[in-house]
Amino acid sequence: MAADPRFHAGTGPHRLDRIAAVAGLPEGSLGADAARLFEDVAPLHEAGPAQIAFLDGRRHLAALRESRAGAVILPPDLAGQVPEGCVALPSPAPHLAFARVAALFHPAPAPLPGIHPTAVVAADAVLGEGSEVGPYAVIGAGAVLGARAYVGPHAVIGPGCVFGDDARIHAHASAICCIAGHRVTLHHGARVGQEGFGFTPTPEGRYVTIPQLGRVRLGDEVEIGANACVDRGALGDTVLGPGTRLDNLVQIGHNVSTGRGCVIVAQVGISGSTRLGDYVTIAGQAGLTGHLTIGSKARIGAQAGVQSDVPPGQDVTGSPAMPVKDALRAALYLRKLGARKGTGSAAATARETAEQKGPPAGRPGHTD
Amino acid sequence: MAADPRFHAGTGPHRLDRIAAVAGLPEGSLGADAARLFEDVAPLHEAGPAQIAFLDGRRHLAALRESRAGAVILPPDLAGQVPEGCVALPSPAPHLAFARVAALFHPAPAPLPGIHPTAVVAADAVLGEGSEVGPYAVIGAGAVLGARAYVGPHAVIGPGCVFGDDARIHAHASAICCIAGHRVTLHHGARVGQEGFGFTPTPEGRYVTIPQLGRVRLGDEVEIGANACVDRGALGDTVLGPGTRLDNLVQIGHNVSTGRGCVIVAQVGISGSTRLGDYVTIAGQAGLTGHLTIGSKARIGAQAGVQSDVPPGQDVTGSPAMPVKDALRAALYLRKLGARKGTGSAAATARETAEQKGPPAGRPGHTD
Amino acid sequence: MAADPRFHAGTGPHRLDRIAAVAGLPEGSLGADAARLFEDVAPLHEAGPAQIAFLDGRRHLAALRESRAGAVILPPDLAGQVPEGCVALPSPAPHLAFARVAALFHPAPAPLPGIHPTAVVAADAVLGEGSEVGPYAVIGAGAVLGARAYVGPHAVIGPGCVFGDDARIHAHASAICCIAGHRVTLHHGARVGQEGFGFTPTPEGRYVTIPQLGRVRLGDEVEIGANACVDRGALGDTVLGPGTRLDNLVQIGHNVSTGRGCVIVAQVGISGSTRLGDYVTIAGQAGLTGHLTIGSKARIGAQAGVQSDVPPGQDVTGSPAMPVKDALRAALYLRKLGARKGTGSAAATARETAEQKGPPAGRPGHTD
Repeated sequence: MAADPRFHAGTGPHRLDRIAAVAGLPEGSLGADAARLFEDVAPLHEAGPAQIAFLDGRRHLAALRESRAGAVILPPDLAGQVPEGCVALPSPAPHLAFARVAALFHPAPAPLPGIHPTAVVAADAVLGEGSEVGPYAVIGAGAVLGARAYVGPHAVIGPGCVFGDDARIHAHASAICCIAGHRVTLHHGARVGQEGFGFTPTPEGRYVTIPQLGRVRLGDEVEIGANACVDRGALGDTVLGPGTRLDNLVQIGHNVSTGRGCVIVAQVGISGSTRLGDYVTIAGQAGLTGHLTIGSKARIGAQAGVQSDVPPGQDVTGSPAMPVKDALRAALYLRKLGARKGTGSAAATARETAEQKGPPAGRPGHTD
Repeated sequence: MAADPRFHAGTGPHRLDRIAAVAGLPEGSLGADAARLFEDVAPLHEAGPAQIAFLDGRRHLAALRESRAGAVILPPDLAGQVPEGCVALPSPAPHLAFARVAALFHPAPAPLPGIHPTAVVAADAVLGEGSEVGPYAVIGAGAVLGARAYVGPHAVIGPGCVFGDDARIHAHASAICCIAGHRVTLHHGARVGQEGFGFTPTPEGRYVTIPQLGRVRLGDEVEIGANACVDRGALGDTVLGPGTRLDNLVQIGHNVSTGRGCVIVAQVGISGSTRLGDYVTIAGQAGLTGHLTIGSKARIGAQAGVQSDVPPGQDVTGSPAMPVKDALRAALYLRKLGARKGTGSAAATARETAEQKGPPAGRPGHTD
Repeated sequence: MAADPRFHAGTGPHRLDRIAAVAGLPEGSLGADAARLFEDVAPLHEAGPAQIAFLDGRRHLAALRESRAGAVILPPDLAGQVPEGCVALPSPAPHLAFARVAALFHPAPAPLPGIHPTAVVAADAVLGEGSEVGPYAVIGAGAVLGARAYVGPHAVIGPGCVFGDDARIHAHASAICCIAGHRVTLHHGARVGQEGFGFTPTPEGRYVTIPQLGRVRLGDEVEIGANACVDRGALGDTVLGPGTRLDNLVQIGHNVSTGRGCVIVAQVGISGSTRLGDYVTIAGQAGLTGHLTIGSKARIGAQAGVQSDVPPGQDVTGSPAMPVKDALRAALYLRKLGARKGTGSAAATARETAEQKGPPAGRPGHTD
């Protein structure tokens, strides 16, 4: 099905030659189809003759052959496999081309300039031209937002915060002690700049908070996922480099810094003062201890537990994390062990004991 | 102690025969006790003669014998063990019977019909009869809520959203691009329908967002926990089937779908396009990669890392996940290894090396 | 750099003798430096002659030698290593002393007494003297806040809640069914007191909610991190003991209780009815199943999966959790296995099979 117009206003129909241009296809490659009109994008298995779909690899080749889509963006080597009547739109980067076509039909909504009468905006706050501030948003003293900011219902921007142009600060998000570049997005309920987890014990066992005197700095095009948290620095800043994206429910501790284009998937946690290079990818639910250095283009696997530095370009996974090939070998070994009925039995234990020439092993099978 | 009346208004006292009827006990089984009055429910170890407690298995049998509760709902085979003066209320499903009795004494509060003067409700939004909209709630253009909706302080319901009857949308929750059935609950700070984690790289290393043009569809009686996140579909919908419940801080990626009655415990993460059948149970902090199929009634253990399909009815755990029996064997083996002082020593390493007929093994003990 | 005055107002400059007194140094130990003025605190590697830094161990000794800081708080045995012109401020607890000095320069802001005109405060709610209630905060019927409360924008305090003096309830936080002591902090988006994950199935496969009739009790100085969740009790209370601190995105299930001074790092999950003693430390992303007893001063490692009781003072890690020494041995063994190229190969499998005298092992290498 095409996008539900209740939620995603569409700008269609569009001519195919326009669509192809947006998708980056060479001009004049369409012949008679150039003027053909298309109404929307749709998934490959559901698209109809007036809709555009895409395929980015062989995984869904069967779906391509059965598709009724009027046109399909796809890798050049698969162009010959489109059904009769379907226009092939070959692209070296089909997903990127499709993203651009989808944005043609459904452009990101521009802010509706204006400040809702219920918004509380400090007298000396500065809002750039074309900005939209929604109901019950609160913008603090001396805050500065660039042009075309979108500030959603109930969003809170603390005193002194600075955002460049084209900020998107969604409903319920909060940003304090924050300096951000252009085209920065905070998704719903994101929490940026709050006090981190810093305290120290007295001899009597009380905890004394260590004042957290830093800030958060977000580079251009940084995005923070829904309900994700980025704590400000203790001394100095917590820094997310340009293009870095955090998925939902991520935790970034005080004084973490990342280079450009890091991708941090949902529910990852990065402890304080750990530093990422550029284009580091961290898969879902991984955890990194503090004061580590993760080199550029390192890739960290889902649920990994990283306790030591990772060199640039290395792939690690497991907990504790180790190089991926090693982790897979170890996991395979454990899987085979688990499938072997003798594992853990008294007989097997006796054999292992004899081999290890050590005392009889531990407690009986108390795994929980 | 009984429920604190500051927070949980009570409707007691009630006659025992009424209580027994609500609990599903057969009529006429109470004799002289039928008219006895009870004031409230309470935990077994604290309940007094005017309170009702429950016991759902042998685990707390000692507490039963010492209980001063006036009546106890319990399995039939334990009915003979109630102390003198305590009325036994045998039930094949004691926890369910107790839930019904607790709801008799403390019914879920009905909405207080009315729209707070500070709520911002679009002119063309539709609110069913008996609905309550709290302070600073924001309901967008064309949104539709059925009868007896409860919308808490600061809740945000986006344009075009649809909820059936008896919706409960608690304080600070947000729902956009969402179509929901009856008796759907969003707990405090839940985030439904926001843009998911969808982008693709350009050759220059920038990330281009892929417009997320789907929706979220919630079946009847779906519940979303506090601060949990459910992203809308990229194309097509993210779907939670009827009766499915998400605990707090769960992450549901775009285009995930579940069947009916799935139970997803706190801090679980499910990556995009993974499909669950009916009555799948996923224990706390487990993670599932994308594009998987999890069969009905599968059970996934706490902290599991599921990277491949799980057939219906199978129990898996571990990371990578494997059948539970295998995982327990492997864990037991590791536990014994860990308890054995020779493990990892130079002597043991030499032995293992000789057995494997390979080169001496890796680096010294750098585990973090 | 020193603290950004846009975000962290400073009270400097201060005389060094005042600073030293706050830091707990003995009087009269400064000589001619006593009247020297300092402007702010700063990190060791950036501080200038008018700034104070600290060092709490040997890790950054190189940075000390190159520091331009005018004074450095540090362990007594390193006092002799300060560069020429830098005043050494020896302290047995440098981090604590620095926390106190930082608070001298940047005291936690006192509430600005007053109730924002947009706050919705129930007529019978009680606010202690000197309290500040921010825009769009909602305080319910019969709620009681002690002196000098700070209630941030959009915070919600439910009917009947009680907080002692010096509460800090940050923007977007919500507290219902909650009774708290003095100096309690809820960070941005924290969720306290909502209904927990309690339901039971009917024979037809529907889920019936079990009324959650308890409360949350927070001791003096408890802190709840940003977007963290603490569910109220099902019957009886969820209790966090005095001084206990939760980091961001933590999940506390119904009827959990902790003693004093527990430290629960980001993204930890504790299942219902588990009880912690005093000064238990739980590192990031660990998970604890329900109904466990964790003894005082136990330490639970990052990403641990605790499935059984932990005695007082024990250190455990791994999933399933085991004593730390054992877990390290097991992890080391796995790491070596993973690094050994023969692991998992057909030849190695054949050898292991022969040794175990069991049938050939399981499936081929399908790890994902």
